[in-house]
Amino acid sequence: MSDAKIIDGKATALSLRARVAEQAQAFADAAGRLPGLAVVLVGEDPASAVYVRAKERASAEAHIGGTVHRLPATTTQEELLALVRALNADTTVDGILVQLPLPPQIDAHAIIAAIDPEKDVDGFHPINAGRLASGLPGFVPCTPLGCLMLLKDYHDHLAGLEAVVVGRSNIVGKPMAQLLLAESCTVTIAHSRTRDLFGAVRRSDIVIAAVGVPELIRGDWIKPGATVIDVGINRVTLPDGKTKLIGDVAYDEAIEVAGAITPVPGGVGPMTIAVLLRNTLVAAHRKTGIALDERTL
Amino acid sequence: MSDAKIIDGKATALSLRARVAEQAQAFADAAGRLPGLAVVLVGEDPASAVYVRAKERASAEAHIGGTVHRLPATTTQEELLALVRALNADTTVDGILVQLPLPPQIDAHAIIAAIDPEKDVDGFHPINAGRLASGLPGFVPCTPLGCLMLLKDYHDHLAGLEAVVVGRSNIVGKPMAQLLLAESCTVTIAHSRTRDLFGAVRRSDIVIAAVGVPELIRGDWIKPGATVIDVGINRVTLPDGKTKLIGDVAYDEAIEVAGAITPVPGGVGPMTIAVLLRNTLVAAHRKTGIALDERTL
Ligand SMILES: NC(=O)c1ccc[n+]([C@@H]2O[C@H](COP(=O)([O-])OP(=O)(O)OC[C@H]3O[C@@H](n4cnc5c(N)ncnc54)[C@H](OP(=O)(O)O)[C@@H]3O)[C@@H](O)[C@H]2O)c1
Ligand SMILES: NC(=O)c1ccc[n+]([C@@H]2O[C@H](COP(=O)([O-])OP(=O)(O)OC[C@H]3O[C@@H](n4cnc5c(N)ncnc54)[C@H](OP(=O)(O)O)[C@@H]3O)[C@@H](O)[C@H]2O)c1
Repeated sequence: MSDAKIIDGKATALSLRARVAEQAQAFADAAGRLPGLAVVLVGEDPASAVYVRAKERASAEAHIGGTVHRLPATTTQEELLALVRALNADTTVDGILVQLPLPPQIDAHAIIAAIDPEKDVDGFHPINAGRLASGLPGFVPCTPLGCLMLLKDYHDHLAGLEAVVVGRSNIVGKPMAQLLLAESCTVTIAHSRTRDLFGAVRRSDIVIAAVGVPELIRGDWIKPGATVIDVGINRVTLPDGKTKLIGDVAYDEAIEVAGAITPVPGGVGPMTIAVLLRNTLVAAHRKTGIALDERTL
Repeated sequence: MSDAKIIDGKATALSLRARVAEQAQAFADAAGRLPGLAVVLVGEDPASAVYVRAKERASAEAHIGGTVHRLPATTTQEELLALVRALNADTTVDGILVQLPLPPQIDAHAIIAAIDPEKDVDGFHPINAGRLASGLPGFVPCTPLGCLMLLKDYHDHLAGLEAVVVGRSNIVGKPMAQLLLAESCTVTIAHSRTRDLFGAVRRSDIVIAAVGVPELIRGDWIKPGATVIDVGINRVTLPDGKTKLIGDVAYDEAIEVAGAITPVPGGVGPMTIAVLLRNTLVAAHRKTGIALDERTL
């Protein structure tokens, strides 16, 4: 029998969405319009289409005015840049999200750099990465900020804890490491070239797995009592031909050792969209100057 | 007797300065003017005045056209912003460096953010911090880039090495961690809240000390054969009343254990100005479109 607390990302995300909905309504009362999120989807990638529909639904529920701009897969860089510029100029748009990946004829870096940083609710613009690194206010990528919220639900203090972030992508691993460093964790960043991943995980009070390799991290790697946040979402095919989502951590093993762990699905996943709505709400307030106590989110 | 190699920062810096001088001359032949570095000094901080004079001398030797703007300690934020804007607009200025610290009536973040990022040869602008974090080309702060150059003189490959950066300032520790991560080291960032600093240092093949605490890191903390880069510059008073510069690492102890180590002075210190000249040269080429193979620097 295990004593690990299962960190319920679904419940935390629902409660965040409820707080966003309430504040978005208050914003609408003050501003005469809903906070506005523009989502841009280029092409027909099926996973992207699913995400975008989920964002549409969640926006509506949270009183965020969502508009989706669907462009054909043949869209040119110049056409997409023109749309981004128009959204930058649109005063009813508070947040802009360009769904990744983009088709190969488009330079994603150039598109991200063209988004008004004050509307960059995904937090991918280099100036927002730099603000995060420099300890300045900006927008933080949704998935790592969601992970931090889950950690803070469970830990009153993170300072001094030993943390490992496995994965160093711009979207998850690197901003996650910055957030933990800002909380005064001692942070190790590991990746595919790391020689002693076992050792790095084994000494850590906090393990963030953002790798994309199913069950890479085994139960006996985990320090007893550690908090494990599993960002990985891997679709695997079972012997009966059905598919299933599993994480980067061997959950059934880790739950026997960890102090707390996020399941997959139902852990980090639901937080990402909830934080996107939160960031849009924050952007709307910053832009209009209407007061919002961001800490209550 | 020790076998540690003493990493000669003075020699490496001199050779970098010679390469910069040569390329700066070639730039002048092509562009009809020297690469231009504008240094802004506000107030009479004696240490800052010494640094600025050293930068002036080194610029002249490296065929970098240096101009120093000396402003009184009573300068207002608006006056300094106006100067920065004028330097941004001056096409003969390739690099702008505002010497820190600034007097208390001036918001240093606002001044740094006002510098044209393409002239930000100190690499302190948040967009350059973000480019570094995101793996995009930009300008990297001089001291950590100098440390990386010293490491690369000594190691053919850094990938997979275990590195610890002690210190998390925006100027040294954090950009140093990003550089080591980009070289595929497994990077741990430690700081004043770190509980097991000994352990973090003890397991590391590369130790970067950027703390500002004299001889904090003892010889028996060092893994045998490790490379130690000591960024610390601490002025201490000796029993006879004279003062002396010492590092953050107990050098006499560490040299018995390390594979290679930088002395203080004569290690990292000389690299900082050399890299500043290098960054100015790079800025001049990027701005004018004149070709430069940055890897040869
Ligand atoms: N829950 C959510 O909402 C959400 C959001 C985003 C992503 N995800 C999931 O999170 C995972 C990571 O996403 P990502 O976008 O960060 O992925 P990514 O860009 O592919 O990065 C994966 C990272 O893992 C490292 N890595 C790969 N194999 C490794 C190994 N054997 N040992 C150690 N490190 C290894 C890579 O190292 P190198 O850099 O050396 O190649 C890389 O840094 C994926 O499963 C993704 O589906 C979930
Ligand atoms: N060679 C050069 O050209 C050059 C250039 C710049 C700086 N330096 C020297 O490098 C040193 C660091 O400079 P800096 O600007 O980065 O300094 P800083 O801004 O004062 O940062 C010092 C860092 O060290 C950490 N720290 C302090 N005491 C510690 C302890 N007992 N154990 C572990 N970490 C500790 C601090 O942690 P917290 O964040 O938790 O407070 C902080 O992150 C100084 O000696 C400075 O003179 C040299």
